[in-house]
Amino acid sequence: MTTALKIVIIGAGYGGLVTAIKLQRHLKNNEAEVTLVNKHDYHYITTHLHMPAAGTDHHENARVKISELINEEKINFIKSTVVQIKPEQKEVVLEDRVLSYDYLVAGLGSETETFGIPGLEEHAMTIRSINSVRLIHQHIKYMFAKYKVNPSRTDYLTFVVGGAGFTGTEFVGELADRIPVLCEDFGVDPSIVKIYNVEAAPHALPPGLPGDLVEYGMDVLRRKGVIYKLSSPIKQCTDEGVMLADGEFIKAGTVIWSGGIRGNRLLEQSGFETIRGRVKVDPYLRSLQYRNVFVTGDCAVVFDPDGRPFPANAQIAVQQACNVARNLVYITRNEPLEPFVYDYKGTVASLGKGEAVGLLKTIKIKGRIAALMKKVIDARYLFVIGGLPLVIRKTSIR
Amino acid sequence: MTTALKIVIIGAGYGGLVTAIKLQRHLKNNEAEVTLVNKHDYHYITTHLHMPAAGTDHHENARVKISELINEEKINFIKSTVVQIKPEQKEVVLEDRVLSYDYLVAGLGSETETFGIPGLEEHAMTIRSINSVRLIHQHIKYMFAKYKVNPSRTDYLTFVVGGAGFTGTEFVGELADRIPVLCEDFGVDPSIVKIYNVEAAPHALPPGLPGDLVEYGMDVLRRKGVIYKLSSPIKQCTDEGVMLADGEFIKAGTVIWSGGIRGNRLLEQSGFETIRGRVKVDPYLRSLQYRNVFVTGDCAVVFDPDGRPFPANAQIAVQQACNVARNLVYITRNEPLEPFVYDYKGTVASLGKGEAVGLLKTIKIKGRIAALMKKVIDARYLFVIGGLPLVIRKTSIR
Repeated sequence: MTTALKIVIIGAGYGGLVTAIKLQRHLKNNEAEVTLVNKHDYHYITTHLHMPAAGTDHHENARVKISELINEEKINFIKSTVVQIKPEQKEVVLEDRVLSYDYLVAGLGSETETFGIPGLEEHAMTIRSINSVRLIHQHIKYMFAKYKVNPSRTDYLTFVVGGAGFTGTEFVGELADRIPVLCEDFGVDPSIVKIYNVEAAPHALPPGLPGDLVEYGMDVLRRKGVIYKLSSPIKQCTDEGVMLADGEFIKAGTVIWSGGIRGNRLLEQSGFETIRGRVKVDPYLRSLQYRNVFVTGDCAVVFDPDGRPFPANAQIAVQQACNVARNLVYITRNEPLEPFVYDYKGTVASLGKGEAVGLLKTIKIKGRIAALMKKVIDARYLFVIGGLPLVIRKTSIR
Repeated sequence: MTTALKIVIIGAGYGGLVTAIKLQRHLKNNEAEVTLVNKHDYHYITTHLHMPAAGTDHHENARVKISELINEEKINFIKSTVVQIKPEQKEVVLEDRVLSYDYLVAGLGSETETFGIPGLEEHAMTIRSINSVRLIHQHIKYMFAKYKVNPSRTDYLTFVVGGAGFTGTEFVGELADRIPVLCEDFGVDPSIVKIYNVEAAPHALPPGLPGDLVEYGMDVLRRKGVIYKLSSPIKQCTDEGVMLADGEFIKAGTVIWSGGIRGNRLLEQSGFETIRGRVKVDPYLRSLQYRNVFVTGDCAVVFDPDGRPFPANAQIAVQQACNVARNLVYITRNEPLEPFVYDYKGTVASLGKGEAVGLLKTIKIKGRIAALMKKVIDARYLFVIGGLPLVIRKTSIR
């Protein structure tokens, strides 16, 4: 009798969680001993965070207890924070213990990339976790309350969102929907509120959308009150607002940065070769340096046939997790591995209530149909991780 | 036919609103033309504000639309802000028009008195209006959200309440009740939260309570986690906390000042003789300078038989309003005026859910009975201004 393989998964985001769920389903008893480590006892649905950030949905709809998703008799779950990876020793150092592994799955997610723009790290909030979006949600309401006791400070009701990509676009759509509700609640004239979406690139909305869809999306958001500042890199962020490259200063009580991400710093600090924090991997998603370390999601960099990195998103993370889980099963059975092939299914970006825009493979969709597709995509993920009961429990009707 | 007397009431707090309601009830048609001016279109129940401030009740339960309380066919209501009183010309200047009067009732309420303590005005919040308590409510939740993204900053969860009199005591009681709920909601260890009640005087709780009741009240609040700092004047307030006279600095994300009030500055600016902003009045509550100006509530200073000013509170304001309304009716009918006599009914201070302490005349009450009496007193006021329907609508069961 040989000892079961020890598989440790660090991070229960899209990559880590789906790997764990798939392993749980496909590994037979005693084929491997699987441990999942995460700093929270919940998984959060990053693609949903723009809604609780704006306050258009409750943050509980963007998270699920891990204990509800995995069978703790099959997967050993540890709530702890990873301090260091020691790939040479095949060890993961947690804040309270050390785990040794035969195979590691690193799905530690991303960090905010501020590109060295002064003040962003200190003064801008980000849409990256349950806690970070609860802060945004509370901050927005706090600004309304502050304005009410000091109505000369209209800048309290100016909102700057840096970055007009996927997250920035989805967030400004929700924020624009939320503003009239807050104005009604606090007794504020809506014309006082300003929402700026500031973007260094000359175009808004997720990269890769055709021009007419981009125009459509920007029109929808402009009608909701969003003011675009394109080709406008942020030069500096202070506690009073943002300075743009052309010298304009937008005085704003709220600055949210969605302009960039990088891989979790822990990987490069642990000696992995990375590109902007994302680990270089082989066709099987294994570290080029350590073939017993698989990397999934935002921590891995995978290139398209033209040599450009695929953007980090939930879709690719889930597909990678399925591939890694399959290959780990093959390893326990001494079967050959399958390379990872990204099957791009499309991109749909929400523009707020009842509006979205995107591509299904190459088919353009927009408006109500796109908004419905967006809901289907979100529900599909919930189904993958938690089945129909989770879909029903976490999907808001609006 | 003579022209009807023009009565203008400025301020729809306890004094102004009750005057208006009583006049509406007792004046016959055409005996007088009554105008009520208020900067909001709602009346708020100041004695209830400690609850929405802490978040233990909704702010809507602390305000009532003025249109629901008065008959606008009998009382002319103007939503506007008073800019100046010109008693010589018998005129009130509003931000958008000028009103002339034969008789004026000034019930403009109080302002915060900071006694010149540096930084208090800029950095401390106050429990004085719907808007100011909504700010406190949002601020508290914002601090929890900030702490969650930056758990080394335990000072975000330190709350300093300056002043341990009536309002300060009632507020810390609610806050102490609210903290466990917020800790649960945000996932915070309650032992991290600190509530300081800081008082310059050597004793806490409303003045005039016997020593054993004060001890009882402080014990109740201490058990809920309140830390008292008595004989501890605040020397300075900064954006990081408060410096006490003994040199101790309490680092705190929240500072609330309930340590003093003064009469509305507008009165002294309009030439009235005042003591700490409160107008000196004759036995009929008329300005000593202008016998056609009645003053009610926090704007008036009335002395007890020993020559000490009665404290400003809702009870005396309502009684003054009744006296002023009665005397205005007498004036229209050329009947002699009645002097104002304060009938002290008692004081009950809430200590949070199910706990209170106080005096009914000279009878000491505490605990559940006192909490019930507090509810009866609050309900009685609602009954006076709005009848049973208002009592039912605004009284929360808890």
